Amino acid sequence: MLIVGERINASRKAIAAAISAQDAAAIIKEAKDQKNAGAHFIDVNAGIFVDEEVRYLKWMVQTIQQEAEIPLCIDSPNPKAITEALALHKGRAMINSITDEKERYQSLIPIIKQFKPLVVALCMTDGGMPHTSDERFKIASRLIDKLTKEGVAPQDIYIDPLVMPISTDKSFGNAVLETIEKITTSFPKVNTICGLSNISYGLPSRKLINQLFLVAAMTKGLSGVIFDPLDKRIMGNLITTRALLGKDDYCGGYLTAFRAGKLDFKD
Amino acid sequence: MLIVGERINASRKAIAAAISAQDAAAIIKEAKDQKNAGAHFIDVNAGIFVDEEVRYLKWMVQTIQQEAEIPLCIDSPNPKAITEALALHKGRAMINSITDEKERYQSLIPIIKQFKPLVVALCMTDGGMPHTSDERFKIASRLIDKLTKEGVAPQDIYIDPLVMPISTDKSFGNAVLETIEKITTSFPKVNTICGLSNISYGLPSRKLINQLFLVAAMTKGLSGVIFDPLDKRIMGNLITTRALLGKDDYCGGYLTAFRAGKLDFKD
Repeated sequence: MLIVGERINASRKAIAAAISAQDAAAIIKEAKDQKNAGAHFIDVNAGIFVDEEVRYLKWMVQTIQQEAEIPLCIDSPNPKAITEALALHKGRAMINSITDEKERYQSLIPIIKQFKPLVVALCMTDGGMPHTSDERFKIASRLIDKLTKEGVAPQDIYIDPLVMPISTDKSFGNAVLETIEKITTSFPKVNTICGLSNISYGLPSRKLINQLFLVAAMTKGLSGVIFDPLDKRIMGNLITTRALLGKDDYCGGYLTAFRAGKLDFKD
Repeated sequence: MLIVGERINASRKAIAAAISAQDAAAIIKEAKDQKNAGAHFIDVNAGIFVDEEVRYLKWMVQTIQQEAEIPLCIDSPNPKAITEALALHKGRAMINSITDEKERYQSLIPIIKQFKPLVVALCMTDGGMPHTSDERFKIASRLIDKLTKEGVAPQDIYIDPLVMPISTDKSFGNAVLETIEKITTSFPKVNTICGLSNISYGLPSRKLINQLFLVAAMTKGLSGVIFDPLDKRIMGNLITTRALLGKDDYCGGYLTAFRAGKLDFKD
């Protein structure tokens, strides 16, 4: 299970403030905390700073990688921002995300071929957001076909089915779960990834929904997730679900987490 | 989602004591509490009292149904106990369970034809316990075939895949999950049911494992569950998972539970 830590996102007030103030220590602490909690990649997002996004992303890549040995997930809808951040990145990065929107797709292909990052491929087209799992699977299949023809290895592609709130339409949870299952079955080498929090938008007790959505998505084959690894219960759910799904030899990961107090929740 | 309340089981010390003392008030309270918490059936089990099992089961059926209007799940490996308890039961009961063991199967068929209870059909044969999902599915298919030929409606059959601990073999969780999926796909009218606690036997923090196993099993199509409906978090997980799976119009059940404080966990 690939874990991408989502905390360094400028949509969080504390992060926006730290970025504006160029507070390197605060950003480095967030990166190290997430790495220590089990993250494999650290997402960096400065999307709210429209004009300054490129500069701030570059600053975050350099700041974090000077102090913490961990690869980053460059999170932006802006190909220019992704390109410039990737050029500075040490080691193999992840990008979040390419889509099947013509302009975005074409701008990112050259840099993907140059730097060979892991690629989050979001199920979105110029025609808008998909609703059903059939629509999502069609977009995903097309993206997989195109990316592999460009030389991207299937295991380097992480399909994001695009999570939408169940408060808007009760079928939106199942649509994502079915998409994960279809991709896992039809393209066994390709990975799937998603964020958790959109699923619960508009509802109370959002954490509960997010926590269990991860369990359901893992049961359908999800192989990557973008979330806050400092959320002890979600991390505990991830560890426990791996054991339930037969991915934890002798329940060793589960037992280690238990002994370390990681399964002892107070909420 | 059919909920069977598991609390009135003589393997619990307090229940054994209440049964021995013929403490009707204690048994009635357990039944009412579970009904109020959302149980559709109340499981009754007096298996530890080998010689007295029949008498005690009959006493529980009469005692509970005099005071609480709820059907019972007669839980015994003993066909004689099931037969005598069913004969006293008002309304339509559930029996737990028939198996593909020759003697047990043949003894129960006449009473099933007479009283037409819902039937838990456990994936077990005279050859012992199944290990893989293929073995479980083969037994389930044979039981479904035989029971429907005897006139049992498919929707009255609840296949129990037989949950075994992941501490014994890491594949045992997946084996059950895959069986649920295969049955749901191959026999869409047939129901599936299981208990939760066997999955976590031999491991610490058992409740966490049980809670998430329910979410995973529901994601695969589980339509019935035997558990303690007074366990607030498991019940909250059930309600939340229904919403995630598109089974809760406008998330109405979820919102009602939230307003009633049922999603406000302290553990």
